[in-house]
Order: sequence, then structure tokens, then C-alpha cells
Amino acid sequence: MEGKLLMTPGPTNVPERVLRKMSEPVIHHRTKEYGKLFGDMSERLKYVLQTKNPVLTFPSAGTGGLEAAIVNMFSKGDKVLIVSIGVFGDRFIKIAKTYGLKVDAIEVPWGRGVEVEEIKERLEDDHKALILTHNETSTAATNPIKEIGEFMKDKNQLFIVDGVSSVGGIEVKMDEWNIDVLVTASQKALMSPPGLAFIGVSDKAWEAAKSSDIPKFYWDFFSAREHLERPTPENPYTPAVSLISGVNEALKMIQEEGLYNVYERHEHLARKLRCELEKMGLNIYTDERFLSNTVTAITFDEEGIASKIKNRMEEEFGIVIAGGQGKMKGKMIRIGHMGYINQEMIDRTINALKKCL
Amino acid sequence: MEGKLLMTPGPTNVPERVLRKMSEPVIHHRTKEYGKLFGDMSERLKYVLQTKNPVLTFPSAGTGGLEAAIVNMFSKGDKVLIVSIGVFGDRFIKIAKTYGLKVDAIEVPWGRGVEVEEIKERLEDDHKALILTHNETSTAATNPIKEIGEFMKDKNQLFIVDGVSSVGGIEVKMDEWNIDVLVTASQKALMSPPGLAFIGVSDKAWEAAKSSDIPKFYWDFFSAREHLERPTPENPYTPAVSLISGVNEALKMIQEEGLYNVYERHEHLARKLRCELEKMGLNIYTDERFLSNTVTAITFDEEGIASKIKNRMEEEFGIVIAGGQGKMKGKMIRIGHMGYINQEMIDRTINALKKCL
Repeated sequence: MEGKLLMTPGPTNVPERVLRKMSEPVIHHRTKEYGKLFGDMSERLKYVLQTKNPVLTFPSAGTGGLEAAIVNMFSKGDKVLIVSIGVFGDRFIKIAKTYGLKVDAIEVPWGRGVEVEEIKERLEDDHKALILTHNETSTAATNPIKEIGEFMKDKNQLFIVDGVSSVGGIEVKMDEWNIDVLVTASQKALMSPPGLAFIGVSDKAWEAAKSSDIPKFYWDFFSAREHLERPTPENPYTPAVSLISGVNEALKMIQEEGLYNVYERHEHLARKLRCELEKMGLNIYTDERFLSNTVTAITFDEEGIASKIKNRMEEEFGIVIAGGQGKMKGKMIRIGHMGYINQEMIDRTINALKKCL
Repeated sequence: MEGKLLMTPGPTNVPERVLRKMSEPVIHHRTKEYGKLFGDMSERLKYVLQTKNPVLTFPSAGTGGLEAAIVNMFSKGDKVLIVSIGVFGDRFIKIAKTYGLKVDAIEVPWGRGVEVEEIKERLEDDHKALILTHNETSTAATNPIKEIGEFMKDKNQLFIVDGVSSVGGIEVKMDEWNIDVLVTASQKALMSPPGLAFIGVSDKAWEAAKSSDIPKFYWDFFSAREHLERPTPENPYTPAVSLISGVNEALKMIQEEGLYNVYERHEHLARKLRCELEKMGLNIYTDERFLSNTVTAITFDEEGIASKIKNRMEEEFGIVIAGGQGKMKGKMIRIGHMGYINQEMIDRTINALKKCL
């Protein structure tokens, strides 16, 4: 069953090992067998998020995870500082405003990450949190969250990070970098099908959650944690058992390879791809100080070229790449290179692209 | 890969055909190929829910679907009448209260369904909706929603039904029975793994949604509909593609068998099972006027028997059945018989149960 090669910034290619796990008979979610599976996966998530705190799991898209972070951490009227460097930063702003937060936004020109200095200038005492996207797939830019995390040390504010397209592909040390809420999802660098959101929550964030007054039921962090920490780990509501089984297998693969080897592989392949693209005379969109190791964006001056390439890549070569989002729709192609990605896939993509041009 | 036989009221056994679909390579969710898959599945859902209106899909547990119904239909302070006949009715009450609704509750003694007369007496002009569970798995009782739906015809109130453990196993005619919001999920009679919630929404409910002021982002019905109705159907956020592919296959199987043949199979097997249990001298918990065709509950006078049977069934015979929930914990066993269920599975369960007793 050979599928198309997914060179998109999520969903990504799922290894055979993970697909096979997904096709095993479903196990019941209130059994010891499931408790072991869910407990094991949750432990492995701690390794990948580099945190000692429990990582919560919700059957949901990544966006549900962002919403869960907002409704658990805040009360209506709370003031927050949100950095947007593209579509997903904008989405975080929309979610926060939906729930009545007062949002101060740093809107960084597309193609760049935020400068730590900009945050230092803009973060005020009455901001309850600093919120940002680690890796922005719409612009292929990565924010310097290690440096931002150093600045956030000993601050009163919560540090909330959307790591949906970074965790498992780009280094993120949740605890060491003072991240209080780290959201990710199954379908990006975690090499699994979409349908699960994962959320790491620091001690400081658990404290903050106690005073949140935004109504929540499905997304309730306390309920998720209480069920996870039972002698036989479980979930408040029926979990997506097959997906959990798939993710557990994918995380095993990351452990076997070693997290830092995984990061290196991503970095190496990203460099290799960019180098080839530059040789072809293509215009890499992102500022070189903020280049992403999980996605690369290329822009074209001429109207219509981007979508023609995207279509030909899929129809003639069976390689799915992404177009531009938001204001870059029709002007950009984006090549994802995260998760289950290797040299051969990069070469195949480059060769097909050469033939398209 | 032979798994345990799941005779639980969800998750249920997943047919090989569906499991095979789940193990195919993931397709990207912004492609024509996905649009066709998602469009096809959504059309098939209309057939199974027996509605002409679009059926929305959310990556979520069934409980998320219940929450979505509440946050889209109401405003804080709205008064509603909720019927509870067990754990899932209680959950609907909790969700409604979480979002600031004023709840009048009809709390029916466990083991029974509600009488239409009770609803006629209790429904008031200022109730904005009547909300109930069609089939309550915690007590193995089914509410007479056809009769209730007849009474609701031409009423101003919305008629909101949790059909999580009925749709696809017990007859539900959404449009003909005047149901305004019908929630269901993938892992019960729809023969698929857990992780997707489906929601049918009537014209009247779409009208009501316009004036709802409860904040929502992930669960927003309008956004889900707008994306579903695009020329190439899609979702606001990354959908659980593998699960959608699985459900589409399961719905094909329901179509091939014919919806009314499926209902008859459920009814026949439920009767057969109850008959055998009675022959064994076991005590069927549910009032005979409200017996469920998707789950059967048996109670034991003696402490500890229920959990012993449950454990032996799994360990010795590889058959997973469920225990009691809420106040029936430890006193009850529940046998699910919905979705991918046949005579041989019922026989296997009966034979194992005989050996356990």
C-alpha cells in the first residue's frame, strides 16, 4: 500500500511500524492493558518534551490543545502578551480574544522570528503570560525560545509555547527553558496520524490553573491529570486508543534513535534541502537567522507558479507539498521535512522539483 | 493479529476492513483526495442519522460532542430541561451547568427510561431545550425518543439527543422525529476506533446557534459547516484522517447491509442474549419496557461476584465485558452488543459466562 510522499508541514509520513500498530484490534480503555499503553506513552512524552511533569493527552486537533491552554490558564479580562510571526500566532490571538482575554500583540513581519529584545521591551508587569509559537509553519520561521526562556526565568508571567511543529524535530527543553505550558500534536514531528493533542504543564502553570474561571469541561486539565495519575492510568473520556497505540510506537522509535540524533537529522536534512534549493536559484522566504529545521518556504515573483508546481509535484511525482497560507496563498510553496524523513525523501523531492521548473 | 473480543458498550470490535483502512498511508487534509473522502463520509453519516442536514465532524471523544452541542446552542442563563436516566444524562447536566445554564432535571430512577408523560408535565415555556440521552449504557435503558419527538413537533424548544450509543444500532430518524441536535461518536455502533464525534444539526438548531453567546472556537458549528460545504470539503483544523478513512469504510458496510437490516440484527441478537441470560437465572437490571438493543446489564446480590466474572471473562476467555458505573460500580456487569456483532460472538460470550458461573 504505497501512498503519496507527504512533504508537507503536517500531517507527515507515518512509518510502517506505526501504521501496523494502528491496525491492531482496539483494546478497551478501562483495562490494565490500556493503562500500561497509556502510561508508557505518557512517560515517553515526558522524554520528548524534556519535562518531569505529566503530559496530558486529549483526542483533538492541535488547535484544541491551544484552546485548552487558554481556558485552563486564564480568567476573562486577563492581560497577555502574544507574539505572532504568522498564521498560527494569529490563531492563538483569536482564541485568546474569543475567551475574553486582553491581548497585547507583537506582530512580527512575516518571514522573521521575534527578537528577544522586543519581548523585553513589551512584556509588562500586568501581563499574566507570554504566549508564542515555537515554529511557525506558515512562514517557515523558528522563534528563539531558548533565549526567551532564559529571560522568562524568575518572571511572574507564564511562558506558553505552541510546539505543534517543533516538538520531536527541533530542540525544546520544557523544564530547562522555563516553559510553563507546551502544546504539541501527533501528526508533525511525532510521526503519527492526526487526532491527538499533548500538553506539558509546569508546577507554576498548575498553580495558575487553580484560579482560572473560564468554564471548561472537556479540556479540564485537573480531570485529565487525576485520571492519568491513577494506579491504572486512564482518561476522563473515551481516548483515541488506536492513535495512542500509534504514537507510543513512534515515540519508541524516537527513543531508539535518540532525541539528539533526531534533532541532528532534522538539522542536517534541512540544511541539505536549503542548499539544493539555493543552487537551483530559488528564493528562500525566511530570514536566515530564523530558519526552521522542520519546514522550508520558497516564494515566486510570478503569479500562479506556486500552485502549478504544487499540483505537478502531486500529480506527476506523487509528492504532496503545501502552498502558502493567509497572505502568502498562491505565492509560496512550503516543503515539510519533519518526523519520518530521510535523505532519500529529500533527494526525491529535489529531483521532482527540478523537473517541474 | 487476533485481539480480545470486545463485548463492552464501546469501544466495540472493529472489522478487519476498517482496520485495514486505518493502516493505509495518511493523506493530506487539504487535497482533493481528502475532500472526496471527507465528503463521502459526511454523506454517509446523513444516511445513518437519517437527516438531510449536514453532519459535522470533530476530532474528539463523544463527550466533546456533547459539550459542542451546549456551547453552540445556548447562552449563559438559558433554562433547559434535561432528562437523566444514568451516568451519561448526569454528564450532560454537568456540562450544561459548567456553561452557566439553568438546569431543570428529570432524574429517572436507574434501570428505567423516561415516560413521555413526565416530559409533558415538566417542559415549560421558558425552557429553551429538552435534552436527553437516547440510549444509556450505564443502565442499559433506552428512552422512547420517537414518542418524545412526536410531542416535540411544533414546540419552540430545541430537542437535543445524545445518540452516542444508539446511532447505527437502534433506529433514530433525526428529521422525522424532530431532533434538532443529534450527537454520536465513532467507537460504538459505527464500528470504528474512538476519536471522532459527529453532530447532526437541524435548521431550527442553526437558527438557535446564531444567538448563542457562549465563547467557542474549536467547537464552532458555523466554521465546521463552512469548511464542510466548500467545493472541496475540508475541516477548520487538521482532521483525524485515518479515523475518518476508517469510519467511511464502516459506514459503507452499514450501507451494504442496509440500515434496517442492521437495526434488526441488533434487535435479534439483543433478544437472543437476554433470553439466554434469563435461562441461566441471571437478573437483568433494566425495566423490560426500556430494554436496550445495544447493551445488557446484569446485577448480582452478592458483593464481589461482578468483578470476579468480569476479570475471569477477560483473563480466561479473552472476552472484555464492562462493570457497573457510578452507583452500580462492583454490583453489575454490562455486555455490549453493538456495531460489528454477530451470533457467534453472542454464543462465545454466553458459553464463557456459563463456565464462569
